[in-house]
Amino acid sequence: MANIRDVAKKAGVGIATVSRYINSKGYVSKSVGEKIQLAIDELNYTPNGLARAIFTKSSNMIGLIIPSLANPFYPELAIGIENRAKELGYRIILSNTEFLKQSELDIIDSMCRHRVDGIIVANASCVKEYINCGIPVVSLEKQISPDIIHLSSDYYKGGRIVADYVLEKKFKRILHIKGPDNIESAANRFLGFKDRLSKFNISVDIHEGMYGEDVEGIAEKLKAYEFVFVWNDDLAISVLNECYYGGVNIPKDIEIIGYDDIFYSRKTIPTLTTVGQSIAAMGEKAVDLLSEQIQNKAPIEKEYLFDVKLIHRNSTNV
Amino acid sequence: MANIRDVAKKAGVGIATVSRYINSKGYVSKSVGEKIQLAIDELNYTPNGLARAIFTKSSNMIGLIIPSLANPFYPELAIGIENRAKELGYRIILSNTEFLKQSELDIIDSMCRHRVDGIIVANASCVKEYINCGIPVVSLEKQISPDIIHLSSDYYKGGRIVADYVLEKKFKRILHIKGPDNIESAANRFLGFKDRLSKFNISVDIHEGMYGEDVEGIAEKLKAYEFVFVWNDDLAISVLNECYYGGVNIPKDIEIIGYDDIFYSRKTIPTLTTVGQSIAAMGEKAVDLLSEQIQNKAPIEKEYLFDVKLIHRNSTNV
Repeated sequence: MANIRDVAKKAGVGIATVSRYINSKGYVSKSVGEKIQLAIDELNYTPNGLARAIFTKSSNMIGLIIPSLANPFYPELAIGIENRAKELGYRIILSNTEFLKQSELDIIDSMCRHRVDGIIVANASCVKEYINCGIPVVSLEKQISPDIIHLSSDYYKGGRIVADYVLEKKFKRILHIKGPDNIESAANRFLGFKDRLSKFNISVDIHEGMYGEDVEGIAEKLKAYEFVFVWNDDLAISVLNECYYGGVNIPKDIEIIGYDDIFYSRKTIPTLTTVGQSIAAMGEKAVDLLSEQIQNKAPIEKEYLFDVKLIHRNSTNV
Repeated sequence: MANIRDVAKKAGVGIATVSRYINSKGYVSKSVGEKIQLAIDELNYTPNGLARAIFTKSSNMIGLIIPSLANPFYPELAIGIENRAKELGYRIILSNTEFLKQSELDIIDSMCRHRVDGIIVANASCVKEYINCGIPVVSLEKQISPDIIHLSSDYYKGGRIVADYVLEKKFKRILHIKGPDNIESAANRFLGFKDRLSKFNISVDIHEGMYGEDVEGIAEKLKAYEFVFVWNDDLAISVLNECYYGGVNIPKDIEIIGYDDIFYSRKTIPTLTTVGQSIAAMGEKAVDLLSEQIQNKAPIEKEYLFDVKLIHRNSTNV
């Protein structure tokens, strides 16, 4: 592979001149610039990005850490982040923890070693590693520390507005399919739901679930209820399927509301009523806030809460 | 941030010794090693991964380039690749081209500058950039060049086995929802389908489509057909939804077969009959073949064809 020395030799100039040209720093005359570019093209020379990142202290890369690629919510979030990052001239490198803390530790370590300019993390499980990593971090879905900017949608309110719907419809037999306690965003949507209903002395039964397997055969159980609130759309899609093949009609026998408004919630049968998060807007704002920090313009505001709303589709009777 | 000099000073040893210790190269006594580790811990020193990658010529990173995060086929492929990469000690950095060639060019350039050890690309649209990038490349879904290893599932056969089903059921009024011509894997599944049917003088009507919008209102059109073959499951999910709300019963009025066997094809209503690709197996093999090349054990075989099979579910009557 050609190096900077080969380019300098071929162009008939000094290494320092080639370096100035490549890094757009200092003066290089037009004619010399053309000679260097010709040499670069002929030798098929790629400037060493690693060396340059060390020199300029900027890699123009943002690390994005998500807990899952299997739940479409996270790929959709990544699309919003990537689109905005491109507009601002950053490249995204994406890594997936599979909800494993050790994986997250390894990823943070690797990203820091490779000098990403900043990290955006969704549903973080590490704390001090982000505080100590020495680069800007933006946290989604969860507060890591008061010093780290975090954005989340208003999960508590999300749970509350589903409860308001239950109250309006005067449902009494209610099931919540609840996410793991260590997923803060899941815990908060349950809390908002339960707190609001308990004010009216309405109790909620719980079925815990994370993956499709966790709701297998749930149709039988659902026959005892009028309403089920599923903590995310991905799992609600499995519940719709179980109901269809288990002889439970939605929304006639039971109404169902999901959470997230992923793309497929518009394509299910029936289409899924859900709590809409502004997935794209949250992703874009995360990039903007990270970018400001990378440029040393630390935003004063550290917490950003995105509003949620109930999106009525055909899995409920309005 | 602490650097190697600070560590050397604090440990009371030379920089070269610290370097030997960090890079596990050459002799460092146990007691000196402990002193250095203590200094590293106290100073919270992170060895500079970029500098190390230049020095050791290995970053242990694999670049993964996919055309889309929105079609779950690619996140599922990425999961298989990532799992295998982890087992072999590589980290994946994932980038998404959104089917844009310029984006792909930028990504290749950025990955090469940051010295990934190799690249796995799905549905490549660049050619010479992969040939000239100077690092091992494995191509999925498409042959880039005879010198670059490529893996794909047998799309032509996939189309043919759907045609065999059509022949068996003696369907005459047949529609194919066809992907863009520049997606080779889409073109080949159509070709296998059409070639086989044309031997029996059965013609196929075409409706072109890529995204959900492209099949909006298609239920009316489908009323004229007995059978529709949709080029991927992601789009077939939109077709199921259109049929349901357009008053077309599946599989009574029309039978439908998709392609890919994404996770959600098991969750649709009705569940989707589809051509199954071994998504995970293909991803794993891609990592193995890339890893062999990174270790300079160039595999002799350059082409790997994965078998496909028809997975009967409830969108067809068997």
